[in-house]
Amino acid sequence: MKLKYAVVGTGGIGGYYGARLAQAGSEVHFLFRSDYEVARTSGLRIDSVKGDFCLPTINAYNSTQDMPVADVVLVCTKTTSNALLPQLLSPIVGSQTVVLLIQNGLNMERELHEAMPEARIAGAIAFICTSKVGPAHIHHAEFGELTMAPYCGECSDVLRQVCADFEQAQVPALYADDLNLIRWRKLVWNIPYNGLSVAMHAQTDELTMTPASRQLLIDLMTEVVRGGQACGAPIKDSYIGKMISFTEGMTPYLPSMRLDYDARRPMEIRSMYEQPIAEARRAGYEMRKTEMLMQQLQYIEQIRDKE
Amino acid sequence: MKLKYAVVGTGGIGGYYGARLAQAGSEVHFLFRSDYEVARTSGLRIDSVKGDFCLPTINAYNSTQDMPVADVVLVCTKTTSNALLPQLLSPIVGSQTVVLLIQNGLNMERELHEAMPEARIAGAIAFICTSKVGPAHIHHAEFGELTMAPYCGECSDVLRQVCADFEQAQVPALYADDLNLIRWRKLVWNIPYNGLSVAMHAQTDELTMTPASRQLLIDLMTEVVRGGQACGAPIKDSYIGKMISFTEGMTPYLPSMRLDYDARRPMEIRSMYEQPIAEARRAGYEMRKTEMLMQQLQYIEQIRDKE
Repeated sequence: MKLKYAVVGTGGIGGYYGARLAQAGSEVHFLFRSDYEVARTSGLRIDSVKGDFCLPTINAYNSTQDMPVADVVLVCTKTTSNALLPQLLSPIVGSQTVVLLIQNGLNMERELHEAMPEARIAGAIAFICTSKVGPAHIHHAEFGELTMAPYCGECSDVLRQVCADFEQAQVPALYADDLNLIRWRKLVWNIPYNGLSVAMHAQTDELTMTPASRQLLIDLMTEVVRGGQACGAPIKDSYIGKMISFTEGMTPYLPSMRLDYDARRPMEIRSMYEQPIAEARRAGYEMRKTEMLMQQLQYIEQIRDKE
Repeated sequence: MKLKYAVVGTGGIGGYYGARLAQAGSEVHFLFRSDYEVARTSGLRIDSVKGDFCLPTINAYNSTQDMPVADVVLVCTKTTSNALLPQLLSPIVGSQTVVLLIQNGLNMERELHEAMPEARIAGAIAFICTSKVGPAHIHHAEFGELTMAPYCGECSDVLRQVCADFEQAQVPALYADDLNLIRWRKLVWNIPYNGLSVAMHAQTDELTMTPASRQLLIDLMTEVVRGGQACGAPIKDSYIGKMISFTEGMTPYLPSMRLDYDARRPMEIRSMYEQPIAEARRAGYEMRKTEMLMQQLQYIEQIRDKE
């Protein structure tokens, strides 16, 4: 049986992954907001490090009420609008649908489960550098791997098929058992680099190669590893050195939170900082420097919103 | 007996305090660097909230080798050049001279004592908003109180006379027994406001009145109070609320570290952050957020110096 996909939030992440599935022959229904007219008439354009391509005709929508119930919903919106998800998703989620949250942070699945207790929910982390460069026009700069794990409801079989579909579509995709572990592991990179790129107004290479900020990166990563360990995510300490070395090898890069800040969009402070800090605190560990970074980001947003 | 004063570092602090002593009739010898020619020909000009005045003729020098041995040396240079102090001071320090360090931070007296073991050394904190606005031209915006305490060598009698001289010169001056206590207490304000004014690019009022940064100020102040307590400085917890309320009542203000940063001068990171953090650590207390602020300041300086 072929899976029918819906993409909610067709930006850098959703546009790229959805287009790859469609390119490989899957049925994909895309939700747009401001780009709807362009997408409806001209489709999706992907400039990718793995080869450029266009999908001139796609299933484009500007409301989930016009979309069919899907087998798999790829939620690729920013977590800052997750409060709207239950209402947004209800027309396309049936009893067999798996909702896969491809988002950054912690506890998004739990919150969605509380609002939609019947839904099958899973989570994924995207290891990718991609961004929207124009209406329905995505630039994929580097990487692309997806790692996904079930949260609630029986969804492991579907997730394994999703992985197979992605693998067919030039997207490396891994099935994992432990959602908590993959979410915390992603935070080891996300918490220091996303926040410091805004608070210190710096790119990944400046932060990694300057002695003082390199030590701060290591300190923040150590806090995330300790926080994860306290919350039952067995991340090895050696993962910190790997993340630093890995970032040294990356093309200099502005993380998603910095792109959000520069575009004056809300930042994912709640899912990426408040939730992990609160979880670690409940487990008895204080992420002090991470909390300071959160306070600095909140300050920056509060000052901006006063303008 | 009247005390003969030397001012080493005739900027905002040294210029104001020295000029007040000279105005009240004390013999004061001023060391200048770049402002020497202006000071020699036109003297010192003080625009003060307590009344403007000029001293058209002063004892101006551009080398301590031309200056007489003083009874009291007011050291008002930035701590960033303290390594030069022993050589700079040797011509004007005799067996009876008291060297009074009017500087921000911790351990400056200990370091000077190690380099000049025979010298009588004391420390002072200046509670003042003052800055140099032109050559030998000082603007005194607010406050002015000095608090001084002995460090080593017999100097309490001289310090009491210094306080009396300042009181005669419209400068409130207090004698204190516990240098460690007054230095840590000053750090309760200096550590959060100086560092955050650079790292967050903000004025005192923005930091105090924005909810996220107000909590961060309180967190940093709490660390300084705990650090001081661990190091034998019995600061009361209620001092934190007093400092916040006090700053609310202040005219919005850029602290000295921000002025240093904006003028591309070195910042007093070592005396104001490295030394207190190291002392607290030796005493068993980790100032985690203060350390992060230090790392951010070091990053900012390292990035700037690469340009």
